[in-house]
Amino acid sequence: MSARSYDERAVSVDSLVCVGLDSAIERLPARFLNDPHPQFAFNRWIIDQTHEYVSAYKPNTAFYEARGAAGWDDLARTMDYLRAQHPDIFTICDAKRADIETTNAGYVRAIFDDLGFDAVTLHPYLGSSAMQPFLSRIDKTSIVLCRTSNHGAGELQDIRVGDKPLWQIVAETVRDIWNTHDQCMLVVGATYPDDLRRARAIVGAMTLLVPGIGAQGGSAAAVMTAANADGRGLIVNASRSVIFSDDPAREARALRDILRAS
Amino acid sequence: MSARSYDERAVSVDSLVCVGLDSAIERLPARFLNDPHPQFAFNRWIIDQTHEYVSAYKPNTAFYEARGAAGWDDLARTMDYLRAQHPDIFTICDAKRADIETTNAGYVRAIFDDLGFDAVTLHPYLGSSAMQPFLSRIDKTSIVLCRTSNHGAGELQDIRVGDKPLWQIVAETVRDIWNTHDQCMLVVGATYPDDLRRARAIVGAMTLLVPGIGAQGGSAAAVMTAANADGRGLIVNASRSVIFSDDPAREARALRDILRAS
Repeated sequence: MSARSYDERAVSVDSLVCVGLDSAIERLPARFLNDPHPQFAFNRWIIDQTHEYVSAYKPNTAFYEARGAAGWDDLARTMDYLRAQHPDIFTICDAKRADIETTNAGYVRAIFDDLGFDAVTLHPYLGSSAMQPFLSRIDKTSIVLCRTSNHGAGELQDIRVGDKPLWQIVAETVRDIWNTHDQCMLVVGATYPDDLRRARAIVGAMTLLVPGIGAQGGSAAAVMTAANADGRGLIVNASRSVIFSDDPAREARALRDILRAS
Repeated sequence: MSARSYDERAVSVDSLVCVGLDSAIERLPARFLNDPHPQFAFNRWIIDQTHEYVSAYKPNTAFYEARGAAGWDDLARTMDYLRAQHPDIFTICDAKRADIETTNAGYVRAIFDDLGFDAVTLHPYLGSSAMQPFLSRIDKTSIVLCRTSNHGAGELQDIRVGDKPLWQIVAETVRDIWNTHDQCMLVVGATYPDDLRRARAIVGAMTLLVPGIGAQGGSAAAVMTAANADGRGLIVNASRSVIFSDDPAREARALRDILRAS
């Protein structure tokens, strides 16, 4: 149900933009590297630059785990800062987790309770029964990988199941079985715009998290053809093309404006 | 190719046992809780008790991430201890990761290089192209989720693709596309022994990581029917039933002996 908090923010700032805090240490501007918390210092700067244009932030855990305990600490500081300064901005932990039921409880505690994220991304492969520790948290949002943005995503996702590709079966399964309390969203990549529209037809008004804009090559205008009738129902993420640009504020604003105009 | 190091250890101690270091803080005996590094202190004790009976250890990252940076630090200390004391024991990071290609590089650095694991568990859903950062590390082992041990695993894994369930397609895909340098293994749960034998028929001599013995209810004798002709090709994992028993050494030895006798 925390999807509602995303919608409220999206309305209040009239933006569908999510900025991906994929703050790879090797790509940070040199001025941050002497800070004792370099990824947090960089993220704070990005947040200060971009917050008025965005409805969500999405750190990907890989870039923090790459620095071990120090990276995890920087991620926690980033979340503390976001919750203190911008409690109305939706926060997505792009962790792509999924384990057996008893084990998922550990991830739930880390991601929802300790770090305080509103949402987490999940792999579908173990099925909804194993995902109950996430799904039973109806105060949070479980965002299930469906049609991913990467090259080669079709290796399994396009396997034909009867007359449909597997990713459509995943979309239907999440719609019919996982999404008992409107606590689910789907990941559908901007790099496959036809599939994005097809996903919209399958899941009705469910919000779609759409990565793949910017560095991965997806088009903002094509993405907006999959919006709901009210022009919303999408979280459009850009990461590298915003945070590693010369002017992150300009890039975030430009993406917001393109999405508004499309 | 690090599978070879597992085989060498399995031969030298004549054991197929892997102990899962699922060291949930809330289940640790009270005497470890005052240690500044409680999960490491517990793991060190478990390792000291069980090492002579095992060929592999498998910490699941969820139980460490549940404690944030402190848990990550305890995981790193555990790996430092293992590599210093028992460099011939195979180490599996049960992280169940999988992201797009550029992002996976962060996980590779964390898991293979910084923590120093021999192997990692991976979700198959994004396809082999995205997994190249893992798969190109032919000095390490990528262990792909195929038929998981959990209740409800069939929701997607049993979907019919032509005349086969999806998990068999995953097994064939890993065999034919991912496993270019014998750097892959598959996860097949002990809780589905018929499927374990079917997986063996599909993948030939490839090593199978078999969770689900012990607390999850799988039978050691049934598992051994999926061994290779030489009695190996399996990594048989038990976690809670060993580490939270009254006598972890006895439980690990008993499992080794049951597997030897089956």
